[in-house]
Amino acid sequence: MKGREHLSLEEISNMPLGSLITTISRAHMAFLFNEIEKLGITGGQFQFLMGLAREDGITQEDLANSFHMNESTIARALRKLEDAGMVQRNVDENNRRKKIITVTEKGKTAVDNVRKADKKWEERIQSLSLDEKNKLKELLSALAIESMELMNEFRQ
Amino acid sequence: MKGREHLSLEEISNMPLGSLITTISRAHMAFLFNEIEKLGITGGQFQFLMGLAREDGITQEDLANSFHMNESTIARALRKLEDAGMVQRNVDENNRRKKIITVTEKGKTAVDNVRKADKKWEERIQSLSLDEKNKLKELLSALAIESMELMNEFRQ
Repeated sequence: MKGREHLSLEEISNMPLGSLITTISRAHMAFLFNEIEKLGITGGQFQFLMGLAREDGITQEDLANSFHMNESTIARALRKLEDAGMVQRNVDENNRRKKIITVTEKGKTAVDNVRKADKKWEERIQSLSLDEKNKLKELLSALAIESMELMNEFRQ
Repeated sequence: MKGREHLSLEEISNMPLGSLITTISRAHMAFLFNEIEKLGITGGQFQFLMGLAREDGITQEDLANSFHMNESTIARALRKLEDAGMVQRNVDENNRRKKIITVTEKGKTAVDNVRKADKKWEERIQSLSLDEKNKLKELLSALAIESMELMNEFRQ
């Protein structure tokens, strides 16, 4: 959602943890969007590309399972990334009905550039000391693990 | 993005702060999604409704400015919320070319229900003590303010 930049200090301090995190996430994504737009793909397609970069060489079928999306949605998203030269789809020589997806050099460079912008965002945060940032990361890592467990529980 | 529930502990601890926050935000939103779907609206429409609930009685024009969206996108989103009985659009008696948007009782109840689910999510996080949650909120509040400032800077 846009428009959250108008939140007051009081509104922020009364927020539940989850809303607070979502508010920061949106502001962070808006910052990264500037980099992503330069790549000629949307924010959603980029997130999909980030996922692919972690699972390079996956089949289209396994990808649909891994992303909890149906195969036609996956195929559409892949086609857009293919058109942008970010991924390649090749027939699996072991099973010609399957397609293996690989991220191209262009795709890898795109992921690297956005990762750099992500680190730049962190460095630009001046209101927290390095110690506070490390403490924050430690607390957030525990929360990340438990929130993913909770999500999986909900999905079953 | 889906599929992030497969992230390993090592991947999580190597993440930049922004990505870590976005990962948690997605897991948190997936948890809330279950509540939002019961309301007959999408996650995106709900976020829009949350913004409206904070600025009840705003004009459609001011809303477009506040959300950094064009008026036709705003009109479409509003129509969907109106169809779901969540908001009302009435002509401004002081300026009949303007429309004032108010959140209905049904809309307010919907917002309350999702806020309750949001608090439930926070309570279900067991890996952090109450002290750690408070420390986390304190650090995140500072980060929320600065990240919104950074976002505004980028948008100018």
